[in-house]
Amino acid sequence: MSGNLIMTNVRPMGADATSITITKGRITGYGEAVRDDADTLDGDGAILIPGLVEAHTHLDKTLLGMPWYHNDVGPRLIDKIENERAQKRLLGIDPARQSERQALLSSSLGSTHIRSHVDVDTDLGLAGIEGVLETREKLRDIVDIEIVAFPQSGMLVRPGTVALMDQAMKLGAQVVGGLDPSAIDRDPKGHLDVVFELAERYGRPVDIHLHETGELGAFSMELIVERTKALGMQGHVTVSHAFCLGMPDQDYVAALIDALAEARVHILTTAPAFKSVPPVKRLMDAGVVVGAGSDGVRDTWGPYGNADMLERAVFVGLRNNFRRDDEVAMALETCTHGGARMMECEGYGLEPGCSADLVLLDGETLAEAVVARRPRKAVIKSGRIVAQDGKSIMTAP
Amino acid sequence: MSGNLIMTNVRPMGADATSITITKGRITGYGEAVRDDADTLDGDGAILIPGLVEAHTHLDKTLLGMPWYHNDVGPRLIDKIENERAQKRLLGIDPARQSERQALLSSSLGSTHIRSHVDVDTDLGLAGIEGVLETREKLRDIVDIEIVAFPQSGMLVRPGTVALMDQAMKLGAQVVGGLDPSAIDRDPKGHLDVVFELAERYGRPVDIHLHETGELGAFSMELIVERTKALGMQGHVTVSHAFCLGMPDQDYVAALIDALAEARVHILTTAPAFKSVPPVKRLMDAGVVVGAGSDGVRDTWGPYGNADMLERAVFVGLRNNFRRDDEVAMALETCTHGGARMMECEGYGLEPGCSADLVLLDGETLAEAVVARRPRKAVIKSGRIVAQDGKSIMTAP
Ligand SMILES: [Zn+2]
Ligand SMILES: [Zn+2]
Repeated sequence: MSGNLIMTNVRPMGADATSITITKGRITGYGEAVRDDADTLDGDGAILIPGLVEAHTHLDKTLLGMPWYHNDVGPRLIDKIENERAQKRLLGIDPARQSERQALLSSSLGSTHIRSHVDVDTDLGLAGIEGVLETREKLRDIVDIEIVAFPQSGMLVRPGTVALMDQAMKLGAQVVGGLDPSAIDRDPKGHLDVVFELAERYGRPVDIHLHETGELGAFSMELIVERTKALGMQGHVTVSHAFCLGMPDQDYVAALIDALAEARVHILTTAPAFKSVPPVKRLMDAGVVVGAGSDGVRDTWGPYGNADMLERAVFVGLRNNFRRDDEVAMALETCTHGGARMMECEGYGLEPGCSADLVLLDGETLAEAVVARRPRKAVIKSGRIVAQDGKSIMTAP
Repeated sequence: MSGNLIMTNVRPMGADATSITITKGRITGYGEAVRDDADTLDGDGAILIPGLVEAHTHLDKTLLGMPWYHNDVGPRLIDKIENERAQKRLLGIDPARQSERQALLSSSLGSTHIRSHVDVDTDLGLAGIEGVLETREKLRDIVDIEIVAFPQSGMLVRPGTVALMDQAMKLGAQVVGGLDPSAIDRDPKGHLDVVFELAERYGRPVDIHLHETGELGAFSMELIVERTKALGMQGHVTVSHAFCLGMPDQDYVAALIDALAEARVHILTTAPAFKSVPPVKRLMDAGVVVGAGSDGVRDTWGPYGNADMLERAVFVGLRNNFRRDDEVAMALETCTHGGARMMECEGYGLEPGCSADLVLLDGETLAEAVVARRPRKAVIKSGRIVAQDGKSIMTAP
């Protein structure tokens, strides 16, 4: 395919209808245009938005397309981690096949970029990383996949994991992951030193799962901010979940938000209903980049995730009590520009010159299209139609 | 229609496939059956559940089918109440038309029973009640609608409202509503005395919106429990929202749950993500009936509601951190049996003798069908197919 495309009668972010011209995979202009060498698509008045960004998920561990997993796992975090490691073998959760299934589902739902944490542990070694690398290559024209090497079972508490993390980065993981420096690894300084040392060695960003709540999580966040500044990594560090930013002590939260803004540390939220959460509007008002993600999609941890980033925008809205149209737009922004800035996507957006990663949404207004969550009319990746009416052009394995 | 129907190859609650025989609108048995005077429907392995119960919504105020309402309303509760009263006239929100639209949407999504709070105030008088009564009659063969006379703008603080509430009950409202006795009406004793006096006069149940959080809401709840017991109204009183049951003081919450169980006062939750909420599992374990509802569906209060009670079950699950299959079933129970007990529906369930109010769900297992929220394969009301593949047999106005 040429990556040349003209879409007529589309409404950028719900504004007046126009045409958009895409040349060699990039947006070259709006308004009337005629080219002989371009495919055309009648937008039929659909709303044009930039590609959705799934900025936090776990492609390697979804159970999509497998027999229903009857979940009777215990209530603790460690129950879920241990159970998953066991089930990976028992159920035969193949990372290549499963990541392809979820990535194609994501694409059909409008995601053009995915950041996936991928397990690295001493049981599985690098099998997860290798599997998702395979999918990343296979789907390179469909969706961008960024891989985070993720020590799901702990790093310092499981000797051998650090060496595997190092190998994962060599193999092609693009981001260094981390996990609950105190609650899981029992050594916040030691854990974060290793994570940032790896990041420095490979010149790569950091994205740390931080489930720790209250003052414990706040302390970890402070340590992350300190290292970000000391290493000059401003703009390249994300704290995922960051439940501590939902703690009752509002003065402490305000100080943390200031520190995050100053160090340009990003926050990723899945907007969970049952946990304290980062206050999205306050963070964005302070200039902190906020991305959003599905986290697990139908895996041994839980049954709910479905990879729909419009639904995630609704969840961000519901969790933050966003009711006004401008607030719904803000929720959507976490699922578009926020995630794109977090992932440092080059040329992301609707401006001429940007990569033509786009979604067409049926809807009356932008807010209406978000809350209705209808099947996506079209998904465009680098100027090429990769899904139409909710169906990917590729068949999942 | 005869109300005679045989459905083959259905799986009750996800169990083994069987046939169900319905005679004159009631379930008469399972297993092989042949009748000449019955329609037949091939269930094709679908999961059979009792009709979904939308136990808390506001049929009179949805904006479904109207031009998108651009929401820029202020943040306070009173802003939303005042704005809505104004918009009802400005936008021309016709209670009959709007309630029919939402009720048909509900039915197409599997709800066979709806409890709707309907505004009664000194601006509108009884127009809301009259409109929803019209819809209740028009859709009597499609979905059961129960009307709560609801003093949305306050009762004692707006003189004349009590007389209107009385007239609403005379006119055909079936439940006496109430609203934040302290926070809105500024007189908890006075408010609840009026509500329970009306209930006693008309021999009708009570359902009170209680948004009051923490100790204030707990105090109101105690007053409600006291009146329930004093008047012998055990089993006929519901507290909607009951955010106070999510307060930090767990000893107080435990005492309240015991009191609710003893007085058989029911709890209705919409499982909002941004508010403290009643703990569903603890309540159900204590024997308290818990129902669920959508609350507002795309109205001037907010854009999100969609009347899908399977989605509401997912929200109950997400809000309560229900991950196991048995917990997903518990979430669904709030949207079926819980609401039905709250509404005191006669003959509700899947047992022979029950009214044939049923839904067929495509799905692998019960939990899978809930989380996937696919279009409903069929909805049966009193033995009659009222919706198929997500489409109602009736066209909304
Ligand atoms: Zn995660
Ligand atoms: Zn309500």
